[in-house]
Amino acid sequence: YYAEAQYVSLREAPAYDSRNAPTIHQAVRVLRKNASDACDSLFHSLLLYVKCFNGSKIVSSHITEVRGDALMLFFPRPLQDPIRGRPKEIPHNEKLLSLKYESLDYDNIENQLFLEEERRMSPMGFRCLEISRWVICGLIGILTGLIACFIDIMVEKLAGYKYQVIKENIEKFTEVGGLSISLILWAVLNCAFVLVGGIMVAFFEPIAAGSGIPQIKCYLNGVKIPRVVRLKTLVVKVIGVICSVAGGLAVGKEGPMIHSGGVVAAGVSQGRSTSLKRDFKMFEYFRRDTEKRDFVSAGAAAGVSAAFGAPVGGVLFSLEEGASFWNQMLTWRIFFASMISTFTLNFFLSIYHGKPGDLSNPGLINFGRFESGLLGALFNSLNYWLTIFRIRYVHRPCLQVMEALLVAAVTAAVSFTMIYFSNDCQPLGPERNEEYSLQLFCADGEYNSMATAFFNTPERSVRSLFHYQPGSYNPMTLGLFTLTYFFLACWTYGLAVSAGVFIPSLLIGAAWGRLCGILLASFTPTSPIWADPGKYALIGAAAQLGGIVRMTLSLTVIMVEATGNVTYGLPIMLVLMIAKIVGDYFQEGLYDIHIKLQSVPFLHWEAPATSHWLTAREVMSSPVTCFNRIEKVGTIVDVLSNTSTNHNGFPVVVQPAKLCGLILRSQLIVLLKHKVFVELARSRLSQRKLQLKDFRDAYPRFPPIQSIHVSQDERECMMDLTEFMNPTPYTVPQDTSLPRVFKLFRALGLRHLVVADDVNRVIGLVTRKDLARYHLGKHGLEELQLAQT
Amino acid sequence: YYAEAQYVSLREAPAYDSRNAPTIHQAVRVLRKNASDACDSLFHSLLLYVKCFNGSKIVSSHITEVRGDALMLFFPRPLQDPIRGRPKEIPHNEKLLSLKYESLDYDNIENQLFLEEERRMSPMGFRCLEISRWVICGLIGILTGLIACFIDIMVEKLAGYKYQVIKENIEKFTEVGGLSISLILWAVLNCAFVLVGGIMVAFFEPIAAGSGIPQIKCYLNGVKIPRVVRLKTLVVKVIGVICSVAGGLAVGKEGPMIHSGGVVAAGVSQGRSTSLKRDFKMFEYFRRDTEKRDFVSAGAAAGVSAAFGAPVGGVLFSLEEGASFWNQMLTWRIFFASMISTFTLNFFLSIYHGKPGDLSNPGLINFGRFESGLLGALFNSLNYWLTIFRIRYVHRPCLQVMEALLVAAVTAAVSFTMIYFSNDCQPLGPERNEEYSLQLFCADGEYNSMATAFFNTPERSVRSLFHYQPGSYNPMTLGLFTLTYFFLACWTYGLAVSAGVFIPSLLIGAAWGRLCGILLASFTPTSPIWADPGKYALIGAAAQLGGIVRMTLSLTVIMVEATGNVTYGLPIMLVLMIAKIVGDYFQEGLYDIHIKLQSVPFLHWEAPATSHWLTAREVMSSPVTCFNRIEKVGTIVDVLSNTSTNHNGFPVVVQPAKLCGLILRSQLIVLLKHKVFVELARSRLSQRKLQLKDFRDAYPRFPPIQSIHVSQDERECMMDLTEFMNPTPYTVPQDTSLPRVFKLFRALGLRHLVVADDVNRVIGLVTRKDLARYHLGKHGLEELQLAQT
Repeated sequence: YYAEAQYVSLREAPAYDSRNAPTIHQAVRVLRKNASDACDSLFHSLLLYVKCFNGSKIVSSHITEVRGDALMLFFPRPLQDPIRGRPKEIPHNEKLLSLKYESLDYDNIENQLFLEEERRMSPMGFRCLEISRWVICGLIGILTGLIACFIDIMVEKLAGYKYQVIKENIEKFTEVGGLSISLILWAVLNCAFVLVGGIMVAFFEPIAAGSGIPQIKCYLNGVKIPRVVRLKTLVVKVIGVICSVAGGLAVGKEGPMIHSGGVVAAGVSQGRSTSLKRDFKMFEYFRRDTEKRDFVSAGAAAGVSAAFGAPVGGVLFSLEEGASFWNQMLTWRIFFASMISTFTLNFFLSIYHGKPGDLSNPGLINFGRFESGLLGALFNSLNYWLTIFRIRYVHRPCLQVMEALLVAAVTAAVSFTMIYFSNDCQPLGPERNEEYSLQLFCADGEYNSMATAFFNTPERSVRSLFHYQPGSYNPMTLGLFTLTYFFLACWTYGLAVSAGVFIPSLLIGAAWGRLCGILLASFTPTSPIWADPGKYALIGAAAQLGGIVRMTLSLTVIMVEATGNVTYGLPIMLVLMIAKIVGDYFQEGLYDIHIKLQSVPFLHWEAPATSHWLTAREVMSSPVTCFNRIEKVGTIVDVLSNTSTNHNGFPVVVQPAKLCGLILRSQLIVLLKHKVFVELARSRLSQRKLQLKDFRDAYPRFPPIQSIHVSQDERECMMDLTEFMNPTPYTVPQDTSLPRVFKLFRALGLRHLVVADDVNRVIGLVTRKDLARYHLGKHGLEELQLAQT
Repeated sequence: YYAEAQYVSLREAPAYDSRNAPTIHQAVRVLRKNASDACDSLFHSLLLYVKCFNGSKIVSSHITEVRGDALMLFFPRPLQDPIRGRPKEIPHNEKLLSLKYESLDYDNIENQLFLEEERRMSPMGFRCLEISRWVICGLIGILTGLIACFIDIMVEKLAGYKYQVIKENIEKFTEVGGLSISLILWAVLNCAFVLVGGIMVAFFEPIAAGSGIPQIKCYLNGVKIPRVVRLKTLVVKVIGVICSVAGGLAVGKEGPMIHSGGVVAAGVSQGRSTSLKRDFKMFEYFRRDTEKRDFVSAGAAAGVSAAFGAPVGGVLFSLEEGASFWNQMLTWRIFFASMISTFTLNFFLSIYHGKPGDLSNPGLINFGRFESGLLGALFNSLNYWLTIFRIRYVHRPCLQVMEALLVAAVTAAVSFTMIYFSNDCQPLGPERNEEYSLQLFCADGEYNSMATAFFNTPERSVRSLFHYQPGSYNPMTLGLFTLTYFFLACWTYGLAVSAGVFIPSLLIGAAWGRLCGILLASFTPTSPIWADPGKYALIGAAAQLGGIVRMTLSLTVIMVEATGNVTYGLPIMLVLMIAKIVGDYFQEGLYDIHIKLQSVPFLHWEAPATSHWLTAREVMSSPVTCFNRIEKVGTIVDVLSNTSTNHNGFPVVVQPAKLCGLILRSQLIVLLKHKVFVELARSRLSQRKLQLKDFRDAYPRFPPIQSIHVSQDERECMMDLTEFMNPTPYTVPQDTSLPRVFKLFRALGLRHLVVADDVNRVIGLVTRKDLARYHLGKHGLEELQLAQT
């Protein structure tokens, strides 16, 4: 593959498609190692030369030797047409960066239209805007709370019905024999639920699969994940999660709740639904990425708040995920939304339970009131290999549904077997009459202890592990349960069903935590400190969850708020921090793994530490397609129609190449659609001037360029971009180091950053993908490859 | 004053010192209202003209009318020499912006030296740095915890001794008469303590006065408050706060604890003490503002954590105050520091109390465990007027100490009077034997209820208000106590003693909260919900504190963590939010008032909403003093010695005026000190090259230019700035709107932002003061005046 090596001098350098070549920084490193100052500039010239010649981004060129002004280079393949030569099938691995994701325009487009609107607005107008922001956050909180309430009640109803039927069936057949019929009944019921959920997800809206937290993370990071905040996604997600939890899979409903909160926020804040084609003519000011993203972070916080009864935890979750855009007013709004959300949920749940006003049930999983990392990494590693396998082989919807059914059936079978062969009988106390306790082969007045763990919704199992008094479980039961549930949960996460990983993690952790507690107590029978295994269950749950998802601050607060007791704050913090440190040593967090495997251009908090020697000149894309301030319509249409480049931001220049603004594809599309041409404006003086409203109406689903008809005459017209371009784009000099570029980009949430030379001429453009490519691997800085996945 | 009005054309515009003129935006507004496009450019030309002519920043010019190319302007005073004419004495008000505060250099100076060092560093080197950051945070936590422990124990000891003596004295004289001797004894003891604290603060380190939270807020905001993080300040602060709490003033020790945490962090992270002239040769990498500021925020969080036993609250406090610089790694470190701090405090306190391992005492003011805003604005308004009075008249140290003594004596007298005339006797329960309960005129086995509130340290009073069972206080007692304590606390805050406002606020709030609870209970005697007045005390305390300091998220978490119970989270949040909304309507928060009255150029979260029509052109300082890349030493020395300008950042240009870098005063000073001149370098080839270490050694107390001797010969030498300047300063075009400039400046924590024209020539410089000048007043946008305060 890397067979061809040749000497290239500056004058005869061929332009190769070097997509799969070793990375640029290796080349530079090799060069720097054995090169003088002269070679340095030589190398730069070469790079520029090859870039210009090729006409497209050069990813790398492997330079092994310097001889005079010639360099020895490795090129993997001979020159191909850049479009035709793009490989159709790429062996999937984590070293890829997908080209299909675009960025959000978090930077305000401060063009003349916008500034005029802002300047016309009175202080009172700004105050009204501020009030409507608070109103929207209130609505987000209320709706998210209601959705959480709906999911909660539906799951309880359906699961209750299912367990009741099976319980009766088991009781019927325990004495007479023929429990295999019960097993089949259980498996069939599970499969039926999962079938509905799986078909919804696999055929109608695949983005609704999984917990949704990685997607929300990406969205808050500034990546536009297609269809992630649509109404359809929300509906599929809600039905899907109800089905998968009721279907007995090893899943929780908390992650989907957070995603739901985000979708609600994106919908409410826009004052319309594109899917339903309804426009309420409200909140038009908020129809841009900047504002929408802020509301989505509020929605995510509201989701956390509803899922765990943890308003402060919700705020911190949103902060940890999208904090580069933090500002204080926003935080308060997020906080407000979280509060309203918990409140609404509690209020309606208390009415449902027939005790209006009793607000003692904060959140779906209130662990109740307490009176007083290695496994995570393993989980993540297993799931990592499983996910790769799935991406490669299980990509057809039918297969995905079938896998989900298989898991559902296996879960039922395993659970049944475990219960069947367990002989851990416990006396039936008076406080446990609500649960679906199975007697099975136990004596009268006793119940099967294994069944409380398996024959139950995961939330109830967690609660029983935390709260049942010492002696409710024997160590053997817990050990077997931990082992089987671990593998079941690991297999389940990543299935094409809506499913969260919080509760299964907590359950695994609680089981082995309680196991540890029991073992410790048996070693030190005199000390009363080790008395309550429920406390160990809590700490174990925190450790397991922390080891899998690797959050610290927000997770601590969530756990503390969910348990309703600050006393365990310190041990929980410690355990989470240790779980994170140990886990990070072996494997990344589960969400990060999934983000990486989707090849999302995710920007981390800082540039890699060892990237100071890279400058804007090396990372930027160049040459850049620019437009003149007054540009021919035909040129614009041709550039936009070029599918091989598919650029989204175009610097606007005045001759000679001097930067004077930046315009986006979406803006140009709207301009073309409304035919804002100089000649037309002259002939039809009465024509309505294009306003911000026209851009807002088209947001966020701008039509593709192909749908806009431009006649041959119109192609000869001119378009004046002055009024619509952003006249003050951020720029950096070409010598700016990568960490500096990264900081500017990340702190301001940019989508395009223009690289200018010392007389303000455009020489390159830095986008998210140019920055996300570099990451710190095991052997120093590595560069990901761009690919069409 | 505004008598003179005249017509000015472009050619004859005089240059006025228009410091006290109406603000620039009013002028622009008037102009825009009745002006055509032509006038717009006319106005800009005029502004530029006046600026150039005057040679110094023009603040404003009031344009009322446009006639041809002449504008009617108001100028308050005729032309004066800009230096000689600067008023020596300015009537102090809040519409000023002090010139004496400089900014921190939060932006990394990525010059060649720095980049070389970073590039030389291996991945292992970066990992070691990371580890030392964690070690430092651990040390900060431990030391802050120890200091908190020391303050706590000392206050308990001294106050215990004092109350014991007075109690014995009162008991002696209650029967025989002559209680006036007790009053005098009490007043003298109080005054003695306050005298020590007052003298320390007023004569040795005035910056140690007050709670220190406004100062830390400013520091985290990026303002360099002189001497705020020095060792001397810490010592004075610790002694001062012990004296003022033991002296019976209406103060708390929590605010000073936060300040102490900040000082500890600034000291530890530098690995040396400039005051003690000790250099441990450690942590040299962290000797710059960027790193130091991050550690100070960790220290502040550790302080909160130690003061309230609230680690998460500490993180949120630091975030709310300095969040523009948030990044995740930093948060974790802050979190870690908070944790260590609480842990250390608890550990040592438990040893002190003789119960090692009993960690149930998280923080100085653990409100204990619960089983189940208008006043703030008034407080702030009163304190506002008092502070203005103090700034105008009580500025001599002697006067300050005398005022402190007066307050101490009055506090003792009022307390005594209240106790003396109170006839609220309560039976002495078994659980109250530890307190200094006064019998006075009560029957045997009873104690004076008023005395539990007044004759006690404020923390204990708060705790008793929260926890004593219903009936321990009668409404009259509480009402009188609230009233008197309110005025005492208001008078006390701002005295020249180290003192916090958290505890007094809590105490006032707890008293009226309990009062409300009792009154409600008396109206609805049947309902058991109103039974516990302690809960009302808690909510009242939260409301009062929230109304005074106006924090929401962090304060909620602090209160919840301090009470050790999540149950009250929701009501506390609600109450804090309402207190903030109501309070903000009338008056700002106490800390913001004090920051404003100190005329600190504090940058808020966002630019004022109505500032979109202001652009960089209007807000920037111009003309800018620039240096050539190779500059004459004499020129540099002259510019640095010019006390009238006192600039700190200088753009470096290549002819003709093209920007190529930015260099700081501090760097130039080091270069001059080491005589890094081109000629000398040529003659002494073996000369040691200047390294980053030389800059780090000089940090943070760079010598003044006057202390550096440059001979006449050396003045003729040249200096090459290429290697030392930051070659990639951030720039904006001159048309950038103020909110956009503000966002860039705030998000990146800049000190200087260069304004460049379309061919990259320097035309202005934006600094913190240029941005902090604009704020939203009652009549729209207002502009503060710069002044030498």
